Amino acid sequence: MLTARETIVPTFAGGTLDRADQVRVNPDKLRAAMMNPRAKLLKLDGLNPVFDDVGDLAWGAAYEASPDNDLLLLGIEEDTPFFAELNGAGDAGPLANRALWQTLGNLPAEQAAIYATARSLVDWHARHKFCAQCGKPTQSRKGGWARLCDKENDGCGAEHFPRTDPVAIMLSECEGKVLLGRQPRFPPKSFSALAGFLEPGESIEGCVKRELFEEAGIKVRDVRYVASQPWPFPSSLMIACTSVTDDPTLTLDEEEIEEAAWFSLDEVKGAMNGEPDALFVAPPPFAIARNLLQHWLDGKA
Amino acid sequence: MLTARETIVPTFAGGTLDRADQVRVNPDKLRAAMMNPRAKLLKLDGLNPVFDDVGDLAWGAAYEASPDNDLLLLGIEEDTPFFAELNGAGDAGPLANRALWQTLGNLPAEQAAIYATARSLVDWHARHKFCAQCGKPTQSRKGGWARLCDKENDGCGAEHFPRTDPVAIMLSECEGKVLLGRQPRFPPKSFSALAGFLEPGESIEGCVKRELFEEAGIKVRDVRYVASQPWPFPSSLMIACTSVTDDPTLTLDEEEIEEAAWFSLDEVKGAMNGEPDALFVAPPPFAIARNLLQHWLDGKA
Repeated sequence: MLTARETIVPTFAGGTLDRADQVRVNPDKLRAAMMNPRAKLLKLDGLNPVFDDVGDLAWGAAYEASPDNDLLLLGIEEDTPFFAELNGAGDAGPLANRALWQTLGNLPAEQAAIYATARSLVDWHARHKFCAQCGKPTQSRKGGWARLCDKENDGCGAEHFPRTDPVAIMLSECEGKVLLGRQPRFPPKSFSALAGFLEPGESIEGCVKRELFEEAGIKVRDVRYVASQPWPFPSSLMIACTSVTDDPTLTLDEEEIEEAAWFSLDEVKGAMNGEPDALFVAPPPFAIARNLLQHWLDGKA
Repeated sequence: MLTARETIVPTFAGGTLDRADQVRVNPDKLRAAMMNPRAKLLKLDGLNPVFDDVGDLAWGAAYEASPDNDLLLLGIEEDTPFFAELNGAGDAGPLANRALWQTLGNLPAEQAAIYATARSLVDWHARHKFCAQCGKPTQSRKGGWARLCDKENDGCGAEHFPRTDPVAIMLSECEGKVLLGRQPRFPPKSFSALAGFLEPGESIEGCVKRELFEEAGIKVRDVRYVASQPWPFPSSLMIACTSVTDDPTLTLDEEEIEEAAWFSLDEVKGAMNGEPDALFVAPPPFAIARNLLQHWLDGKA
């Protein structure tokens, strides 16, 4: 029997496409995939998705790609290779995408995951055209899964791989209530789980403890992993955890957190159910913070 | 009461130093910390640690740092700031460090975590001197926790942050036995958990499933998170998981995996105890793979 944890599949986390890594690294196989007349090309408007008549991701043929652009191999399914075009579009920042997130949350899980992969990679190539080690231009390699500072082009030989930046996002519980906060950029009345990037030299558990102390002034214990989610704005890995604290006194980092409070089971239920007199607006369905809050509610049932 | 999971603190994961992020981002506070006569400087030989007479990490005074090198703020404890020098040393690759790992595994947890942080950051600065977006030279900012492509120096204004690359490392269980494998570069008879980097657009659970299918040809379910570990060679975050499979038939990726097999409880116990007739050599104490195997044994007890 599956536990609750295994059934949590946040938006973007449901990818099942075979990523075909053995094709990426084999130039002959990669060329054959690109020349395959069935090969598909994900339609993108810059970094944004394009939808077909029924609201699915729209696809063209790989041979329609601009000859100026490299191709990204997204994966292969039943002998059909799936590509995206490295079109040079870069991310416009975290504030631009709220309407888009809503739309993506309604896509079937597999399509949302394909789009997440394509978006992170197209953006990474656009913002990593030069070698961080020596400053020379780099070129896409391995079907878009690396960039090489090619010695044959007078480069240093360094190979660069796409970033995946882990972020801890977490609840803390005290006396049966749960901690939520809001950043200044959130929509009115919205509260969510606190979050922060993992730093070098830190475990997931260490990051949860540090962030909750920095942002809310609480010391937590019993950190528990719940679920994870790729978040392609631009390249985060959200790692959702719960924790426990014994002292609810909050000291907020007011640069990061505009307001934070402890919410009761009934208050969280009211917000999750969207009741008209709810104390706050719960995180939207595409956010792993909502999965995390639901997991907390389920544990209380 | 703590569960088994909370008590797993792999080498490098036990950091408790206050990283003092509010000082990093405040130029006045940062300068005061650097000028503090008590401020300490971690001694490094390139990227390698230097030990004092009793085998602890050796420290000098911050004012002894070369004026040519930027300083990295490691953290602040009881009004004493701790720094490392961005000395330009870069990582020599994963094969160079085996003897070093052994030594580090014997350090107190707090010291191992401080060294891990310093090593990852010193190396990151050495190999990221140029802007990946425009190719211009960048400068250290925020006490070594960022590099800026400064518009005042004709740069593009991009801010770059240190990498932390998540890696899934995992067991799979089938019919009471556990899957371990060896890479060609491992010492003789050594077996460990399989592992691989998370990719953009992937959850932790998705990465575990993909890697075990790519490397061993098995389809797994019930992925469970166990523990995490920063691994500063150069900047990984090891995420240890268990999983279950119903079909033990292995199909190895022979580029990656030289040999893999299912081991019984008694065979794992013999290896973990270092028995003379053990079938294989278990992962060393500094490796999270050993914590993961111990967790598996504990679950069977």
